[in-house]
Amino acid sequence: MMRRVLIVGTGLIGASVGLALRAVGFDGEIIGTGPTAETLKTAQAIGAIDSWHARDAADSAAAACDVIILAGPVLSILDWMQRLAPSLGEHQLVTDVGSTKVQIAELAGKLYNQPGRARFLPGHPMAGKESGGAALAEASLFQNAMWLFTPAVAVKPSLLEKEWREWVAKLGARTMDLDPARHDEICAWVSHLPQMLSTALAALLEETFGTDPRSREEIAAIGGRALRETTRLGASPYSMWRDIALSNTEPIAATLHALEQRLAHVRENLRTPELKEEFRLANEFRKRRE
Amino acid sequence: MMRRVLIVGTGLIGASVGLALRAVGFDGEIIGTGPTAETLKTAQAIGAIDSWHARDAADSAAAACDVIILAGPVLSILDWMQRLAPSLGEHQLVTDVGSTKVQIAELAGKLYNQPGRARFLPGHPMAGKESGGAALAEASLFQNAMWLFTPAVAVKPSLLEKEWREWVAKLGARTMDLDPARHDEICAWVSHLPQMLSTALAALLEETFGTDPRSREEIAAIGGRALRETTRLGASPYSMWRDIALSNTEPIAATLHALEQRLAHVRENLRTPELKEEFRLANEFRKRRE
Repeated sequence: MMRRVLIVGTGLIGASVGLALRAVGFDGEIIGTGPTAETLKTAQAIGAIDSWHARDAADSAAAACDVIILAGPVLSILDWMQRLAPSLGEHQLVTDVGSTKVQIAELAGKLYNQPGRARFLPGHPMAGKESGGAALAEASLFQNAMWLFTPAVAVKPSLLEKEWREWVAKLGARTMDLDPARHDEICAWVSHLPQMLSTALAALLEETFGTDPRSREEIAAIGGRALRETTRLGASPYSMWRDIALSNTEPIAATLHALEQRLAHVRENLRTPELKEEFRLANEFRKRRE
Repeated sequence: MMRRVLIVGTGLIGASVGLALRAVGFDGEIIGTGPTAETLKTAQAIGAIDSWHARDAADSAAAACDVIILAGPVLSILDWMQRLAPSLGEHQLVTDVGSTKVQIAELAGKLYNQPGRARFLPGHPMAGKESGGAALAEASLFQNAMWLFTPAVAVKPSLLEKEWREWVAKLGARTMDLDPARHDEICAWVSHLPQMLSTALAALLEETFGTDPRSREEIAAIGGRALRETTRLGASPYSMWRDIALSNTEPIAATLHALEQRLAHVRENLRTPELKEEFRLANEFRKRRE
């Protein structure tokens, strides 16, 4: 049974997991660790964790917990997976909230899910805010959010894994199991491509008009909802997206390349009936999503 | 003084102008005309116009009005400009609500704003909805909207033009005067590019995943706000955008080409520090808009 939980990385997602577990009645112990004492203190102050250990003291804390939740960016999750594997055992479950899953699932197959080793269940709650940090954490962050899992199909779920899935459902999230490669491909299309697109568009506008006061005023006065929505994700921090770009490079590059070609196709057909077909396909896509 | 108004094309924008004029106290006559009797009947039923004439009988109606508002798509505005010019005189004002302004301003210089000819003030209210039609018209559509004008600088504003600008202000719109070419360039960046981008992305997703039920399910389940916002404009109708693409081809093509290159730049730098610079520029752009 899950009685003691370690949250590694108590930023927005990690601290929200702590708050959400408490809100739905988890009455065991919640311990935090991570690179920054300030973040851990904030997480404790808002009630997301009961106590915390500095990063250097995390190994013994992890050894004493039933469930360990790795909640940093993807590369830090991979680091923690390597670091913690030797000190954990079969009776424990490690899970994560990383945005890409192929590299994490691969490492899980090597270092976890083996005789004598802890279980690892790769996870990905599709929740967040434009800004991060423990101070913005909310118990309701996962209500109606999608929480994806990419378990190794050959590994029989442990009781602790089943219990963790039950807690995730109690947090209000819908869940879906996916193959890790499929996860990364779908997320490239529905999340990473929109992000890179929004970043590219906002950066292009900044470079084209940013230094000229008159242009800035005109863009601000004339731009409406269309501009706001297509550039909103431009506010996202590089710190989070660096790891996504590094750990899902090929699928993201493939979607970007496909969109470049599609934009060229639209550009070459601004005056031909082919543009009508493009609008028809787009209308079709939207119709199903309303 | 403006006592009698003709609205040519009583769809969403045209009918909303009628409703809005009434709502802010215009007590003169509002007449409608346009290609479709059904649309005109709807506009009359909701109180946007007092009476209407079939398109074939519009010339004599126009001759008897002080202000004529051309409210269809751009190509239909150009048609009406040609058709009405001979039957109108110096004491009358023609204005429009078209989305692009270079071609309209050019034609206005030839057929209007000459001795013995009616005045023409090119206008563009930046307001709308995802769907059109008189039935969706609202008196409040222009509240806080930007209403752009692209007057010929050499033409001294007539009293009727000044009065029309006062009515536009009473409708709740902010106004700004721009050079027509500058208007079309800025609108290409803040409105036409986001539209073509959204259409291209939605069409690409539809073509890549549309016919496979499992993919459709996954996209629907996993796609969140990022996908929704970047594809929302994919619902826009071709009927409206065809005329924008035809009348602003070069500026739209230039912005599309710039974005294609920018996306390629992001794609080639997913694993380099250049991606950080791209996020920094995008963050900069968003910071000023929050």
